[in-house]
Amino acid sequence: MKQSQLFCKTNKPALSRVEGNKSAETESVSADLLARAGFVDQLMAGVYTFLPLGFRVVKNIENVVRKNMVDAGGQEILMPVLQPKENWTTTGRWNTLDVLFKVKGSGDKEYALGPTHEEVVSPLAKKFVFSYKDLPFSVFQIQTKFRDELRAKSGILRTREFLMKDLYSFHASQEDLDKYYDKMIKVYFNIFKELGIGKETYLTLASGGTFSRYSHEFQMLTEAGEDLIYICNKCKTAINKEIKAENPACPNCSSDSFQEKKAVEVGNIFKLGTKYALPFDLKYKDQYGQDKPVIMGCYGIGISRAMGAVVEANHDEKGIVWPKEIAPFAVHLIGLGEDKKVKATSQKIYQELQKENIQVLYDDRQDKSAGEKFAEADLIGIPYRVIVSEKTLAKNSLEIKERNKSAAKLIKVKDLIKLLKLK
Amino acid sequence: MKQSQLFCKTNKPALSRVEGNKSAETESVSADLLARAGFVDQLMAGVYTFLPLGFRVVKNIENVVRKNMVDAGGQEILMPVLQPKENWTTTGRWNTLDVLFKVKGSGDKEYALGPTHEEVVSPLAKKFVFSYKDLPFSVFQIQTKFRDELRAKSGILRTREFLMKDLYSFHASQEDLDKYYDKMIKVYFNIFKELGIGKETYLTLASGGTFSRYSHEFQMLTEAGEDLIYICNKCKTAINKEIKAENPACPNCSSDSFQEKKAVEVGNIFKLGTKYALPFDLKYKDQYGQDKPVIMGCYGIGISRAMGAVVEANHDEKGIVWPKEIAPFAVHLIGLGEDKKVKATSQKIYQELQKENIQVLYDDRQDKSAGEKFAEADLIGIPYRVIVSEKTLAKNSLEIKERNKSAAKLIKVKDLIKLLKLK
Repeated sequence: MKQSQLFCKTNKPALSRVEGNKSAETESVSADLLARAGFVDQLMAGVYTFLPLGFRVVKNIENVVRKNMVDAGGQEILMPVLQPKENWTTTGRWNTLDVLFKVKGSGDKEYALGPTHEEVVSPLAKKFVFSYKDLPFSVFQIQTKFRDELRAKSGILRTREFLMKDLYSFHASQEDLDKYYDKMIKVYFNIFKELGIGKETYLTLASGGTFSRYSHEFQMLTEAGEDLIYICNKCKTAINKEIKAENPACPNCSSDSFQEKKAVEVGNIFKLGTKYALPFDLKYKDQYGQDKPVIMGCYGIGISRAMGAVVEANHDEKGIVWPKEIAPFAVHLIGLGEDKKVKATSQKIYQELQKENIQVLYDDRQDKSAGEKFAEADLIGIPYRVIVSEKTLAKNSLEIKERNKSAAKLIKVKDLIKLLKLK
Repeated sequence: MKQSQLFCKTNKPALSRVEGNKSAETESVSADLLARAGFVDQLMAGVYTFLPLGFRVVKNIENVVRKNMVDAGGQEILMPVLQPKENWTTTGRWNTLDVLFKVKGSGDKEYALGPTHEEVVSPLAKKFVFSYKDLPFSVFQIQTKFRDELRAKSGILRTREFLMKDLYSFHASQEDLDKYYDKMIKVYFNIFKELGIGKETYLTLASGGTFSRYSHEFQMLTEAGEDLIYICNKCKTAINKEIKAENPACPNCSSDSFQEKKAVEVGNIFKLGTKYALPFDLKYKDQYGQDKPVIMGCYGIGISRAMGAVVEANHDEKGIVWPKEIAPFAVHLIGLGEDKKVKATSQKIYQELQKENIQVLYDDRQDKSAGEKFAEADLIGIPYRVIVSEKTLAKNSLEIKERNKSAAKLIKVKDLIKLLKLK
């Protein structure tokens, strides 16, 4: 894409509010960087538009998550936002879930705006599950969810409308659920690794329910987080605030020495057991013809929140440093000056990269100085910056620099694509 | 994908309600076929879940539409569902748009659930448009929309929650909008052709507004449609009911001989002019430094509705006949019987097709008869059916049949992939 055609410009990088220089309005580093670099636009508190650069990152995150879900046997579907009140009264959550948005439609029909989908997926499964032979299976969706958070804050880390991946698994036995749940923990760590936040993310014990002692949160350490987690100094088990209040000692190794850290929840998984199967009468016939309730698990990842979390964990004083897997483009190609040969070479490289399916943002703007272009490139944070200028062409070369390294090097035009394809 | 693992089974094909045999509950052929073949599931009136097969078709339709929008210069973004009441009072539509879903949140904050996005995209553009140099541009999204239709009916043809592509264009002059609008008519016809409903779809004159005499609907002829259109017998211009009431004669050739046809609106485009620019004070400075209001156009296509429309136009008495571009899979591979060699060959072909990136649904089920498998394959409507049986293997062959042709032919195993890759 040509940067001259991008309708949303970055906001003045000169007004830097990164690190130590946060203004009162700035809620988090990621909120500040994503807004200034033109990835998101706030429509109102807790509600954002994803602009072209941000939309590309969202799609890349979705694809990482999708691939891992499909590999784990998940079947992708798309469930509705509008959910009938009746299903929420069936589970009793119409009156108890305080973040539930309620809508009244024509004919006094009442709906919930889905904050989660147990109330839809359980009756859906009931239409197709009859025998133990129909189990196990899992379905997932990547979909927009709604929660009426009293305090929406920290940019896209806590919003009223957000993108989420939610997977639901259905089993004939607790053992089968346990096995799948353990597998999903590994899948989740793989996802966070691919998203570039593997090292900062802790599997954290959280409250369970009737059917299991603990559920698990995936908490990423960041000062922008609203959660507090406690990491055992001896065995590195992490527990959330609630568990800490109940357990002065580590539930794993009994040590009472913890580090307290701020964190943001990027995923959570939960053994639902028969909590939703029972009210919806979701059952199957076992080998002996006996009716048994289906055992369920649920597994969430916040897609838009993950985008904010990635930025919290991957930035420097100049801007965002996108991990390669989810960067909006692979290469930021920058032409400098008005020289005809520079323009022609830049244009040619732009076309060749596209032909090779290497995603490229081409800064073809004539009304920006080299300094402005470099500052914006650092702010946007694309992994490779490639400069074409009279100076580099005098050496029959281009300059290439990785966003997370300081050294730039000269490279022959013909070697550029070879190098980028290896990455 | 293995059909044995598909969690949603097709409903009994024996209860055929296709054509001439519709029961009272059946609202349209597409509603019946899509539900029975396991593409969609109705959660409540006008609200549907897309099941794995249906989800794949939705994604394919999205990709056809997306490619055409990007080729036409559209920049993809994602705007919110939740929209502030204030923006809708600014345009006066909070009280006049009767299909608007209204939500009250905490702190008595009121929101609209977006039925369209002029109230979001206009103030968004205002943040980035300053000069004539910032124009023209266009943005689009593929997103879930909400309309509180009094009568939701005909399956996914008219729903309360639906997927839509909406593109908005921004121009410095009426001439520039006119040029873009004419281009978009061609782009739309290309999309409908790619979706397999090109021949049935008519550009239809509809009411304009302050800024243009007519807007344009793209109406697909079908008995399931709720609209009536009038096709001029002389020049083939189509006009909608409203225009017909105002014009007893054809607005193009003055003939008064029309055919009346039932149709469903699959797209519509509209010259908005300054209707939304004015209330949001969306303006630019022209070459002489004068402030001028931005001229806008909007261009919609119903993604989920298109899926229903495609089925209305592409089915026979046995089931759906998907056009290749948007079929859930390219090949339906069916293994027959319990013979070991049949199983091994089927499995091998399944893996080879996957390796070649040919999307395949593999009917590996052991508890279904050949007749049941064929009936389901016809109902689901995948373009190529490939059968592996003792009979075909005796001739060292497979049987291949196109869904829209009656003749099957034998083909050598080694020629199958070659043939499919050519298609």
